[in-house]
Amino acid sequence: MHALQWIAAWALLLHGCAAGRPPQAASARSDVRDCSVDPPYLPPTATNTTARLAALRGTMRAHGIHAYIVPSTDAHMSEYIAERDSRLGWLTGFTGSAGTGVVTQDKAALWTDSRYWTQAERQLDCNWELQRTTWIESIGLWILEAVPVGGNISLDPFLFSIDTWNSYSRALHGSGRTLLPIETNLVDQVWGDQRPPPASSEIYSLPPAFTGSSWQEKVAGIRQQMEQHVRRPTAVLLSGLEETAWLFNLRGDDIPYNPVFYAYTLLTNTTISLFVNETRLAAAARQSLQAGCPGPLCVELREYGQARTHLRHYAQGNVTIWLGTEYTTYGLYSVIPQEKLLEDSYSPVMLAKAVKNTKEQKLLRAAHVRDAVAVIQYLLWLEKMVPQGQVDEFSGAQHIDTLRQAQEHSRGPSFQSISASGLNAALAHYSPSNGSSRKLSVNEMYLSDTGGQYLDGTTDITRTVHWGVPTPLQKEAYTRVLMGNIDLSRLVFPPNTAGRVVESFARRALWDVGLNYGHGTGHGIGNFLSVHEWPVGFQSNNVPLMAGMFTSIEPGYYRDGEFGIRIEDVALVVEAQTEHQTGEKPFLTFEVVSLVPYDRNLIDLRLLSPEQIRYLNAYYETIRARVGPELQRQQLEEAYRWLQRSTEPFPLGSTATSATATLGTLALASLLSALLTGLQA
Amino acid sequence: MHALQWIAAWALLLHGCAAGRPPQAASARSDVRDCSVDPPYLPPTATNTTARLAALRGTMRAHGIHAYIVPSTDAHMSEYIAERDSRLGWLTGFTGSAGTGVVTQDKAALWTDSRYWTQAERQLDCNWELQRTTWIESIGLWILEAVPVGGNISLDPFLFSIDTWNSYSRALHGSGRTLLPIETNLVDQVWGDQRPPPASSEIYSLPPAFTGSSWQEKVAGIRQQMEQHVRRPTAVLLSGLEETAWLFNLRGDDIPYNPVFYAYTLLTNTTISLFVNETRLAAAARQSLQAGCPGPLCVELREYGQARTHLRHYAQGNVTIWLGTEYTTYGLYSVIPQEKLLEDSYSPVMLAKAVKNTKEQKLLRAAHVRDAVAVIQYLLWLEKMVPQGQVDEFSGAQHIDTLRQAQEHSRGPSFQSISASGLNAALAHYSPSNGSSRKLSVNEMYLSDTGGQYLDGTTDITRTVHWGVPTPLQKEAYTRVLMGNIDLSRLVFPPNTAGRVVESFARRALWDVGLNYGHGTGHGIGNFLSVHEWPVGFQSNNVPLMAGMFTSIEPGYYRDGEFGIRIEDVALVVEAQTEHQTGEKPFLTFEVVSLVPYDRNLIDLRLLSPEQIRYLNAYYETIRARVGPELQRQQLEEAYRWLQRSTEPFPLGSTATSATATLGTLALASLLSALLTGLQA
Repeated sequence: MHALQWIAAWALLLHGCAAGRPPQAASARSDVRDCSVDPPYLPPTATNTTARLAALRGTMRAHGIHAYIVPSTDAHMSEYIAERDSRLGWLTGFTGSAGTGVVTQDKAALWTDSRYWTQAERQLDCNWELQRTTWIESIGLWILEAVPVGGNISLDPFLFSIDTWNSYSRALHGSGRTLLPIETNLVDQVWGDQRPPPASSEIYSLPPAFTGSSWQEKVAGIRQQMEQHVRRPTAVLLSGLEETAWLFNLRGDDIPYNPVFYAYTLLTNTTISLFVNETRLAAAARQSLQAGCPGPLCVELREYGQARTHLRHYAQGNVTIWLGTEYTTYGLYSVIPQEKLLEDSYSPVMLAKAVKNTKEQKLLRAAHVRDAVAVIQYLLWLEKMVPQGQVDEFSGAQHIDTLRQAQEHSRGPSFQSISASGLNAALAHYSPSNGSSRKLSVNEMYLSDTGGQYLDGTTDITRTVHWGVPTPLQKEAYTRVLMGNIDLSRLVFPPNTAGRVVESFARRALWDVGLNYGHGTGHGIGNFLSVHEWPVGFQSNNVPLMAGMFTSIEPGYYRDGEFGIRIEDVALVVEAQTEHQTGEKPFLTFEVVSLVPYDRNLIDLRLLSPEQIRYLNAYYETIRARVGPELQRQQLEEAYRWLQRSTEPFPLGSTATSATATLGTLALASLLSALLTGLQA
Repeated sequence: MHALQWIAAWALLLHGCAAGRPPQAASARSDVRDCSVDPPYLPPTATNTTARLAALRGTMRAHGIHAYIVPSTDAHMSEYIAERDSRLGWLTGFTGSAGTGVVTQDKAALWTDSRYWTQAERQLDCNWELQRTTWIESIGLWILEAVPVGGNISLDPFLFSIDTWNSYSRALHGSGRTLLPIETNLVDQVWGDQRPPPASSEIYSLPPAFTGSSWQEKVAGIRQQMEQHVRRPTAVLLSGLEETAWLFNLRGDDIPYNPVFYAYTLLTNTTISLFVNETRLAAAARQSLQAGCPGPLCVELREYGQARTHLRHYAQGNVTIWLGTEYTTYGLYSVIPQEKLLEDSYSPVMLAKAVKNTKEQKLLRAAHVRDAVAVIQYLLWLEKMVPQGQVDEFSGAQHIDTLRQAQEHSRGPSFQSISASGLNAALAHYSPSNGSSRKLSVNEMYLSDTGGQYLDGTTDITRTVHWGVPTPLQKEAYTRVLMGNIDLSRLVFPPNTAGRVVESFARRALWDVGLNYGHGTGHGIGNFLSVHEWPVGFQSNNVPLMAGMFTSIEPGYYRDGEFGIRIEDVALVVEAQTEHQTGEKPFLTFEVVSLVPYDRNLIDLRLLSPEQIRYLNAYYETIRARVGPELQRQQLEEAYRWLQRSTEPFPLGSTATSATATLGTLALASLLSALLTGLQA
């Protein structure tokens, strides 16, 4: 769950209040810069950007540009980006996943959110102001102060979403400054031959055993949707990398963690254009794509760089082009005349990909069984090693990666592991690095949020554990996080319910005692694709839940400077069996496909309702039934015994000793007492 | 809850599927029109509109207009409208609360939602097509077919919201037809002297005992918000009738059920203009408004009809005008240049009104105590009279009105009573009429949704009862609706939580078994003002919940052709006492201020959790403590005894015999059995 673009908005909400705090006196610390002294103090982690900035300013002058905006995304609005696209990182030295830089002839500033303020102070030199906000309005105000009337503010339109472009446009509207898209990327120009080369690794077809349907079937399905749409679109434009990868059953490794490759697709009712570096296509992949040539199922291969020109040309005809506005860049969008656009938040390909068919469901379930084996091995290993003081956050993260790697069809981690002990776990996006990693201890809680890529599916699971004696608050908070996970997982709800109206069920047990968490409650996930797959989830811009969708369910609780808890499972939306029926379609519920038991040491059974305990016991039975045989098949006897031990059913009776004891119990107790008295008399 | 504008969107969702059903063969029924026979068959309830239409078409020709759109709202987007504003009703004969008419030279059509299809077939004559949808896109398509290119489509811009105007504008954009606002209302022109006269009753000041603060304090509060706003607005425009009534502590009776009067207000940083028929102001009211003249707290009285002209003049200066776009008409909005507008969904007055101060809370609580007396008397009366076959829906509704009228400070009902027996209760908006009213019976469920206006507050409460033997489904559904009411009422949640993310708690118990309801879960309510007060509630366009807001909580369940259940209380948002604290502000919860017990005959205790029973018992204790003394003060001894009987605490032990019995109980039972065996041995 690294980078957490999908929870960034929430993180901002939570951390917004921190903006008022005075920054710590920099002079007292050697790990952050101090620009107030002369000469400025820079830690060894800072990058000298003087020459880079001078070069960029020269290019800006040559183009008559007074301010240049540099974002942290790539041309496909990808969550993870390649080094070659890390323009903001190269220019500023700042390597956080979210930020915006603006450079004028005499000033330079970086905007980022509270997750990254300390990191920025460690990595920036004193050429850069750090702006502790991310609102585009505030960037606009800064620009208006820095650039006189008549000035040009410029950006690369292929690196900005339609929404972001519109926000800048509004912020500068009527100010006498011009917002000028310029297609030459000025950072790339000055980066020159120091810039990493384009990806060159092979793009390959996924074997049929790992695909839900052939690419021809997928294309036919999308074309059918085009025909049935009231506006009769003639084409669908795909600019999300996972859209093209999914549609053609192709994979690559241009982006860390996500097996995708740089490409655009223009799918029309009669033709298919795939914009990609065709020399990279494996022979079998090319053959698959061109087996139907010529004809409507022939994929024409065109240069990646020709997408815009081709689109502009196509848009001159009598056409209607369907696209997803959430992730298409302004650069592409702006070449299509308004009346020829069919705008939805997500393209029909994105929506088709979100609903997994029976085979895709089966594949994802299977990947989760093997993934559970690795995580169970890891938990068992920790249980033995941590008391010996042998594990730190970094070596732990390495070990789980190794265990996953040993599983069949493994293709590496699906994101940078979060492996956080004690107070580090209170930072929701923490990842350890070699050398600055905290030792795991029986006296602290430990949070592990990791995932794997397998040919059959992508996984993402978080478990929080304590090997010693947790504090009462830790135990209560863990139990309430678990209650939230259970309450949402076992919820029955009508078809077409939006995730945002049910996610509070994951919070209620915490709310009851005044606790909460500041991030989202879940995100979609792919079949050997993105670990955060739009548009499924529980946020306001997610689509309604439908049978066949997979989402994570991951409530948490974080206590600054002390500990952090998150319990994350991946769940499949399935039809529910209900006593009654309302409407034509059955109600829905979740089937949890992550199959790793929770930490018994942290569960306060007295807080759980009988329904929650029954659910938990049923879930544990499922884990035994699905993972047990796989552990035995892999001859992991010790892990098998650990699993049996860890999935012992919980006694329903425990609640009777708790605050929720029913009067029924008390009545029976009184009866018993009376009887005894009577018998003794 | 009559008219239910606030749930219309939901109702449409539910009933949308009915659109596919073929209408019942008209020939088989004498209560609806049949335009397929010659001459057409019209029931006695239909209105002959031939002359009215001819007159309107004449006026349209004179103005060069090819299609004229007639809405069902007034110039303030009021929920209830005066007869004088019932233009659609007069023109078509159709008296439903929601609809749109369009007239061309040779066609006329009415659009309305499924709640009103049968009513429309009873009231329309054959001059009118009935269109069974309300989407503006469909009205637009109809107009495009009926009006050739070059034609003018016209409407009265003072009767359309900004949003609705924009929708028509989009629907006709680029079609070669012109959307032409025309300030003369053509229906009024042909209605002529048959149109009811303008309201003339007195507009009066609310006595200080019934106001939360003086109007001067309210004005000062709004001006402070203007000063503190980053855009520094110079004026606030109020076009909602309840905004002006609340701000100046004035009341009138121009609109049924809501004690408001026709007015606009332009509150600037230095002046206050109240647009109203000033001859209607009571002397004391006028004196109160003008005590501060001249000066910034002097209310200048201007003619109601001058609002637009004055606004246009004011908007020529160096000003910024703040308004609520949800209920301002396009007619007013369009006179303000875009750059001088500060648009929010709701004006600061609407938001200030929504958060009741301590005194307003106290007033509303007090009104609910007396209202409970009337409802309790009614329930007791029904219990005695229904078995004798003496009550029908209409006489029941009359009786509750009479009982409320007897309470101190009563000012009549707050909406048209819903009094529905058996299958009639399955229609969420059903109101009985004299002569066509169903007899109440011990063999049917009965739903009563009624409310009162009192000088200190507005009330709204729904109780559903059964005096005989309910079916298992009735009992289960009632209990689950009650569980939903309880679960939402006792929810603890963080400050600034939007109602839409918590309203599912009111549905969960129904969802669990595949049931649901098709309307919203609650709405704000005023202090002697609107019974449906924006912007508080649980829908997507409501604002986040804050301490001091009042909202109804009203889950339900409806079974077509069989029965209907709704349990509605009004609740105040209050600070919660929690064990822990997150963030600066305390968490929130609800305090239910409606104080009438539920029907014990319909509660299946075995379904309730111990927490739900404990909540219920605590609520009943509150009812006894607050309403008991008032019943005694009013010497209503029989009602007092009924209240005591109806609020007996429920045994917590009942759950032990249910499906939710804990193992703890079973364990004790086994122990008991073992002990007995041991002792006997």
